[in-house]
Amino acid sequence: MKSATFFTIDWRDGAVVMIDQRALPTREIYRTYTDYRSVARAITDMVIRGAPAIGVAAAMGIALGARQLKRSAEPAVFARICQVFAATRPTAVNLFWAIDRMRRRYEKVRAKGREALIEALEQEALKIYQEDITANQRIGRHGAKLIPKGATVLTHCNAGALATAGYGTALGVIRAAWEQGKNISVFVPETRPYLQGARLTAWELVREGIPATLITDNMIGHFMQKGAIDCVIVGTDRTAANGDVANKIGTYTSAVLAGRHKLPFYVAAPTTSIDLDCPSGKKIPIEERSAQEVTHVLRQQIAPSEIAVAHPAFDVTPHRLVSAIITEKGIARGPYSQSLPKFVKRKR
Amino acid sequence: MKSATFFTIDWRDGAVVMIDQRALPTREIYRTYTDYRSVARAITDMVIRGAPAIGVAAAMGIALGARQLKRSAEPAVFARICQVFAATRPTAVNLFWAIDRMRRRYEKVRAKGREALIEALEQEALKIYQEDITANQRIGRHGAKLIPKGATVLTHCNAGALATAGYGTALGVIRAAWEQGKNISVFVPETRPYLQGARLTAWELVREGIPATLITDNMIGHFMQKGAIDCVIVGTDRTAANGDVANKIGTYTSAVLAGRHKLPFYVAAPTTSIDLDCPSGKKIPIEERSAQEVTHVLRQQIAPSEIAVAHPAFDVTPHRLVSAIITEKGIARGPYSQSLPKFVKRKR
Repeated sequence: MKSATFFTIDWRDGAVVMIDQRALPTREIYRTYTDYRSVARAITDMVIRGAPAIGVAAAMGIALGARQLKRSAEPAVFARICQVFAATRPTAVNLFWAIDRMRRRYEKVRAKGREALIEALEQEALKIYQEDITANQRIGRHGAKLIPKGATVLTHCNAGALATAGYGTALGVIRAAWEQGKNISVFVPETRPYLQGARLTAWELVREGIPATLITDNMIGHFMQKGAIDCVIVGTDRTAANGDVANKIGTYTSAVLAGRHKLPFYVAAPTTSIDLDCPSGKKIPIEERSAQEVTHVLRQQIAPSEIAVAHPAFDVTPHRLVSAIITEKGIARGPYSQSLPKFVKRKR
Repeated sequence: MKSATFFTIDWRDGAVVMIDQRALPTREIYRTYTDYRSVARAITDMVIRGAPAIGVAAAMGIALGARQLKRSAEPAVFARICQVFAATRPTAVNLFWAIDRMRRRYEKVRAKGREALIEALEQEALKIYQEDITANQRIGRHGAKLIPKGATVLTHCNAGALATAGYGTALGVIRAAWEQGKNISVFVPETRPYLQGARLTAWELVREGIPATLITDNMIGHFMQKGAIDCVIVGTDRTAANGDVANKIGTYTSAVLAGRHKLPFYVAAPTTSIDLDCPSGKKIPIEERSAQEVTHVLRQQIAPSEIAVAHPAFDVTPHRLVSAIITEKGIARGPYSQSLPKFVKRKR
């Protein structure tokens, strides 16, 4: 789905085109990549981010990479291309899911010759792209049932169209509730250090005309205490078999606050982000990103140079704090070790 | 007390000198004010901030203002000067305490003539300044008993030398524990929107050589979950008679997280910040500051111009979440409605 006004990622005549999310909200710049390594770098450098969007970008990147194969049967070269994408970012499981799927497709068609292979991988990437949009729209439909009329919904980071092929996961639920005329409004925490809330979610909601209020991350407790928030909905980079949810740093804090104020805490999770091979959140690798993203805001220094910094990019919310996990196949409730396998299969 | 390397505010030859806290940590600029209105503007514009420091600045500002009286017995003019300071910032009670004290001094000496009055008000302001430093050192001594050897202490905002005449309240406790060789370390949340943690607390701790780690506000839950934090200590802008604590926005979130992780949550409060005339936190006025401080970081735009913004500058932590209130006269424990009156008198 392309929104009326922007798109996150697209495949155009053998090139990958992305909106540069680093330049938002003040500049809307689209970048074109014709080389798979530059797509991988775009993921690492966060031109594109958001677990489902990263999966789509990797699939399209691998499809680009396949054009560099001299013969179709070069499994070592193909494996190296996949490896470049696997090394971009460690936490989001959609990335590994998309790579696996492209690899399986490669195995199936590599005997058919170079041209057929290139065509097949391109089609597979487009299928992943299209399936992601469909899944998000279904998540939206299921999730909207959980959002009362007139509710004020808190989200976190950006789990919107910009984090996916389109429509969004958590913002997909918000979009669906809005499209149903539920007259909702949204609280948007800015989500330091990378400011995905202020830069991306606020931008999407303004474009969409959905009433939204920007706050700093440390205001969440205050507004819950004041009764200004009715429920929380966030995305996920990886959800484990027991329902533990890895998501952008700060999600756990929101979940604890929601628990204290007896507010439902929902996770919008396409099945591609649920990892049944991962037994619990303790096993999810948490990416540590650069100190500079904390000591600087948009390249401006905000802290003394000599200060030590910690920068975990994600945290893990234990399943007990999660009221429901909304997938494209339906809504899972705890105990998740029993409900999630109805929607997702183990891979290994 | 002047630190070896910097000072927050000083009285020099009939002028008020302050470090410009807006320029820290990258630039160390001292500004000199000879007119009371410019001192009031420095408070409003946050050249100086922190409840006790604001109180000292107002006292010195009123002493400056007294020089503009033509005769000593101009109560209407003096009242107007006091009014200018009372209108600067609404939440910190130290401001009103300092104004009251200067007003009482004025009443006592105004019959003695203009020169005596100017001299008396200058001496009173210097006394308030000196008493604040002494109170902070005592808070440090009392509070350090609560900090175990080797502890990692989380603070919030800046309740340091920069927030007071010197030494600091919450950072005073940290300084005292460090000076006692307790081998502690500190987690410093950056404290958006104004970044007092990143800009001021990190800067003070680096100067002092106390090991400190800067984090974004939304990482607090994660590090408590990991067992990396042993206790929390914050300052206060106003503490009510029942022990409810108004402090920089985000304090409540920290207190909820501390409660969930069974960590002690301490408040360092000079008796000048305890308001027994205010029955509970519900009665404390919460300053709403500008949207631009949220949509911009150091003048750089981080959010779309069209987005709505909320910006409460403070929040209220209910007394049940407060493990102890450390005053210069000793440590108060709940129920605070019984323990606080042992240290503080009602004014009205």
